[in-house]
Amino acid sequence: MILFFTDFGWLGPYIGQMHTAVVGYANTIPIVDLMHDAPAQDPKAAAYLLAALAPAMPAECVCVGVVDPGVGTDRDAIVLRTGNRFFVGPDNGLFSLTARHSDAVRWYRIVWRPETLSASFHGRDLFAPIAARIAARTTPGQEARCPASASWMDGLVTEISGPAVSPEWADDIDEVIYIDSFGNCILGRRAMTVDQHASIHVPGETLGAARTFGDAPEGSAFWYANSMGMVEIAVNKGNAAERFGLKIGTPVQVH
Amino acid sequence: MILFFTDFGWLGPYIGQMHTAVVGYANTIPIVDLMHDAPAQDPKAAAYLLAALAPAMPAECVCVGVVDPGVGTDRDAIVLRTGNRFFVGPDNGLFSLTARHSDAVRWYRIVWRPETLSASFHGRDLFAPIAARIAARTTPGQEARCPASASWMDGLVTEISGPAVSPEWADDIDEVIYIDSFGNCILGRRAMTVDQHASIHVPGETLGAARTFGDAPEGSAFWYANSMGMVEIAVNKGNAAERFGLKIGTPVQVH
Amino acid sequence: MILFFTDFGWLGPYIGQMHTAVVGYANTIPIVDLMHDAPAQDPKAAAYLLAALAPAMPAECVCVGVVDPGVGTDRDAIVLRTGNRFFVGPDNGLFSLTARHSDAVRWYRIVWRPETLSASFHGRDLFAPIAARIAARTTPGQEARCPASASWMDGLVTEISGPAVSPEWADDIDEVIYIDSFGNCILGRRAMTVDQHASIHVPGETLGAARTFGDAPEGSAFWYANSMGMVEIAVNKGNAAERFGLKIGTPVQVH
Repeated sequence: MILFFTDFGWLGPYIGQMHTAVVGYANTIPIVDLMHDAPAQDPKAAAYLLAALAPAMPAECVCVGVVDPGVGTDRDAIVLRTGNRFFVGPDNGLFSLTARHSDAVRWYRIVWRPETLSASFHGRDLFAPIAARIAARTTPGQEARCPASASWMDGLVTEISGPAVSPEWADDIDEVIYIDSFGNCILGRRAMTVDQHASIHVPGETLGAARTFGDAPEGSAFWYANSMGMVEIAVNKGNAAERFGLKIGTPVQVH
Repeated sequence: MILFFTDFGWLGPYIGQMHTAVVGYANTIPIVDLMHDAPAQDPKAAAYLLAALAPAMPAECVCVGVVDPGVGTDRDAIVLRTGNRFFVGPDNGLFSLTARHSDAVRWYRIVWRPETLSASFHGRDLFAPIAARIAARTTPGQEARCPASASWMDGLVTEISGPAVSPEWADDIDEVIYIDSFGNCILGRRAMTVDQHASIHVPGETLGAARTFGDAPEGSAFWYANSMGMVEIAVNKGNAAERFGLKIGTPVQVH
Repeated sequence: MILFFTDFGWLGPYIGQMHTAVVGYANTIPIVDLMHDAPAQDPKAAAYLLAALAPAMPAECVCVGVVDPGVGTDRDAIVLRTGNRFFVGPDNGLFSLTARHSDAVRWYRIVWRPETLSASFHGRDLFAPIAARIAARTTPGQEARCPASASWMDGLVTEISGPAVSPEWADDIDEVIYIDSFGNCILGRRAMTVDQHASIHVPGETLGAARTFGDAPEGSAFWYANSMGMVEIAVNKGNAAERFGLKIGTPVQVH
């Protein structure tokens, strides 16, 4: 399975062109669009979100992660391997939290290059093709496409000791990392690190915990452990981001 | 084939997580996103829309229907079977119109439970996995994944006489049930129940029928039998919802 | 592989219904949604965009192209074949630029008709089913579904000398043909036809070329050869369409 996690949005031909790159190489590997509205041009917030989503990915999969403001510069292209999960994308910290929360971590630099590599769309030209090749070589029944001697690495990557960009981001941060279309705000903090009686201070209000939306009166604000296991600020039938002026990166206080 | 019919929208990881749940279990079952902008949190309007879409579904398929304001409460999780079509979702009336317009109707309560069931995302944790298991057990060539003795029901569901929630919604309603991105308004009325010479009264205007958009002068309003077989109010190169102040649930008069 | 290129948008059941039509006929043919925000109701702009995307399609594929303001009128339904790429859609000029830039061009009129053909949704009722049948008959391993004697054409199409609608659109046009969600504006001009030192005149400003976004100072406007090989006008961290008042069809000057 190949999963896409990008900040491209659903408009334009960009998602379709990445799918084409996969299907054109290996047309029986399932593709899942995990999300295409990752925090735009914000590898830090996206790193926390991806780390929250990674534990529920299948034990064997390839995830293409593209939040890549440095495309076209000399930043490297890398692969993170955690067990039999592979993460393919730019060397800009995007995979750093996923690596930190995983066991059996290995890093690789992508050395394969396509015939033509555009300056602005490595998702289509580099990351999706690499993902297709890794998936084809590591998925039982798919190896037929591969040279007889090929390990999944041959000609694609070389192992490295670690990524060039390894930011000192904390394990958990009390900042908004994602706002959904209803205005619910996910923090970069795993719910398991917070006491159920904790309060969250946002501008003008202090929020207690609820188990789910139905447990809070209509119009009231609360925090809860969301379905990814992250702390999320919400208003029952309301818009928390608007009400409290929260944006991606806004700090809050958790006590 | 598994079809998704939800009100989740395309943003966030929610659709992708449901796909992952299916593919992770049975990776050769085709998935179709029928729509993800079903009337939000409105099982009644969504029930009419789903019933309009159901007749064109393949004779053998599993449809995951999630318009579920009661998620996290004690509402049941059910399966409607009409012939070899299965509908998986909450027991809140969402499948009631589909059942009423179908033959060979049977109902089941979902008894299977995942290792962990979140309070807020049964689409990922319960409905998609059940759909994958039903599809795997009822799709020729897929049964290999299944225990040798398993009927499609074993360990998943138990048959019941009917759903707990069975609203007394009419067969057809003269209310708006869906508004598309161009402002065209679908009513909860099957076109075959309306005379072609009927008029529809909306605030400030009376609309006659047209066969298609091209038959109405630019800027004029009309109703027509849409491609789902439902009555739809439209303005040629205009926005009917804005012009007449129509929202989901707004009543109109058909004579 | 079947690719969809439409102006339907992602909302409503329309994309899902076209997918269902394909999967219901031939459930192992991969489907890619190339894009669903092609220039709305604008076959001319869409023709330039499709021609820009076609060269990167797989050598063997079927592309359903639907930008079809004339649906429900007596316009024909056609197939363009370029090598082993097939383009299925309305006879309104949409495929004209793709044909002009291709070798080995052949044209066909669709003669197959479904049991019921709606007046408003030929994408679901005609184009997607035809695409599924062509793909099934031309994809190795899929022919089992086909009558033993069937060539890909039998009962589906008849060859014609050319489309009925063959507009005299230039090979390249200095007009905006697509605006992405960030306000970047693609012109109907292939970058290979423009000198790298050329300037583009937009209302109030003259733009020079840059290789990529990172090469332009923040807030400055420029043009560049985008990842489709087309000339694109952009503002680094800004919105070119808003800044210069550009819309689809707006002419600019390239010197």
